[in-house]
Amino acid sequence: MTVADVTTQDRYPTRRGTESAFIERTDPVVWSGVRAGPATRTDLAAHEAKGFHTVPGLLSPAEVQKYWQELDRLTKDPEVRADERTVVEKDSGQVRSLFEVHRTSELIAELVRDPRVLDRARQILGSEVYVHQSRINYMPGFKGSGFYWHSDFETWHAEDGLPAPRAVSLSVALTDNYPFNGGLMVMPGAHRTYVSCVGRTPGENYKSSLKEQKVGVPGEDDITRLGYEHGIEQFTGYAGSALWFDSNTMHGSGNNITPFPRSNIFIVFNSVRNAPVAPFAADRPRPSFVAARDPSAVVR
Amino acid sequence: MTVADVTTQDRYPTRRGTESAFIERTDPVVWSGVRAGPATRTDLAAHEAKGFHTVPGLLSPAEVQKYWQELDRLTKDPEVRADERTVVEKDSGQVRSLFEVHRTSELIAELVRDPRVLDRARQILGSEVYVHQSRINYMPGFKGSGFYWHSDFETWHAEDGLPAPRAVSLSVALTDNYPFNGGLMVMPGAHRTYVSCVGRTPGENYKSSLKEQKVGVPGEDDITRLGYEHGIEQFTGYAGSALWFDSNTMHGSGNNITPFPRSNIFIVFNSVRNAPVAPFAADRPRPSFVAARDPSAVVR
Repeated sequence: MTVADVTTQDRYPTRRGTESAFIERTDPVVWSGVRAGPATRTDLAAHEAKGFHTVPGLLSPAEVQKYWQELDRLTKDPEVRADERTVVEKDSGQVRSLFEVHRTSELIAELVRDPRVLDRARQILGSEVYVHQSRINYMPGFKGSGFYWHSDFETWHAEDGLPAPRAVSLSVALTDNYPFNGGLMVMPGAHRTYVSCVGRTPGENYKSSLKEQKVGVPGEDDITRLGYEHGIEQFTGYAGSALWFDSNTMHGSGNNITPFPRSNIFIVFNSVRNAPVAPFAADRPRPSFVAARDPSAVVR
Repeated sequence: MTVADVTTQDRYPTRRGTESAFIERTDPVVWSGVRAGPATRTDLAAHEAKGFHTVPGLLSPAEVQKYWQELDRLTKDPEVRADERTVVEKDSGQVRSLFEVHRTSELIAELVRDPRVLDRARQILGSEVYVHQSRINYMPGFKGSGFYWHSDFETWHAEDGLPAPRAVSLSVALTDNYPFNGGLMVMPGAHRTYVSCVGRTPGENYKSSLKEQKVGVPGEDDITRLGYEHGIEQFTGYAGSALWFDSNTMHGSGNNITPFPRSNIFIVFNSVRNAPVAPFAADRPRPSFVAARDPSAVVR
């Protein structure tokens, strides 16, 4: 397939000029093909309608403790801190994210292969899956800055070349998520609308966009329209709770001035039938530790 | 009373050096003396124990609409915008607060005299009361920056000379307060602990502190200790709901990246038996539009 072919077939154009646009999603949210798995019909119906669903207590308190110690170990390791896959907080210099943790931590690799996780991803995407991105996020108390509203798929399409929103994200809380310590906000139902964003992707955009995204974010008028149409829900719950959300979910988070830190494991599964092609709105793909390029690296 | 006398009698010292301290409150929270009024025994018990209580639906939807229109009228008035009693948002230039509104708006003056409001303030403070400060706050969507943790009494004591925490604040929501659009966070029970803060008060501190407070805020260690001891509650509810909170309540608010603005009327009642003296930790008192100095201006 040539670049021209891909461009012709781009059903989700973005970053092409100065006008934003709402594009109706034509792809399914829950894909048919895999029936058996841990997700109930209610789970899948919620995922289809709202773009997300929760699994309270996916991890037991003992498992949470195990992963928390793993995070602690990793953030204290000087080699990990110096690794290009580690992102530090813009203002405080604290570790904010560790990328590709399913390759650097055997514990996270186990979690990815856990049937509670992997089989649910296969049910939602209706096929075999692989890990497009994995990371552990750490938002400290007091200084945790939030993330403005965005759709992950917009970036994964523009910069990584995922053709369709046939990907699903899993966020597992490692700390209690209150409504007031910077938890994820989502707009239920907005996953059916693709917001084509203004601007052009700068070179090596990922180096700054992983800290604060400036291109590929909708304007305030678009967020206002979506916000008043769909409302906002927050992902709250005890440590160990999980949120599964569609790749085109409109989401963001406020800052955290409480003393309570917020930490989570984040795994993105992509369908092997949605393998990345050339980026749709960037000169070259992002590095593979941010966005895997080899779908043959199937999880099992 | 000389300055020396006042200093000797200062039971709430603050801004004296480089060490912070926790001082146990010796004054009552709900003062005896006035029995009759709209506050139930349950309301007053909650106020005593937690330092605050709520009154859902204090204003009817029609009243909310009336006050909202008043805010709209005031913020569009060029004279009001240019008034020194108007505070504009640091980054966006939008109107953030209008001070002394009970003198500039007849509608707010009526609210202050309303028995639903005035008589509850008298019950809590156990005496006649007057307005120490009044304002309307407007936190726009997207760009609303929050307020770091602080006790109002610390400032009113240090900069305005209120001898004791015999003051109570009323916040009336003019917009629906969600958990995610920058609503007030409070630490229940922390009103019994006075945090003596480090630093010295700069001259004309109020000009910057009304936008972002830098002196008179507790350190992160102190907030962590209070946060883990008392936990955090948020003031949420439909427009028209009210929060009454003690002057020494530890409170703060996060930023607001949602499209939903947040607006409220804020009235501080002080007991006429707690009249301001010379500031306890500032060269001169703040202007009277921020902190009234004449307790004989009783409300009725």
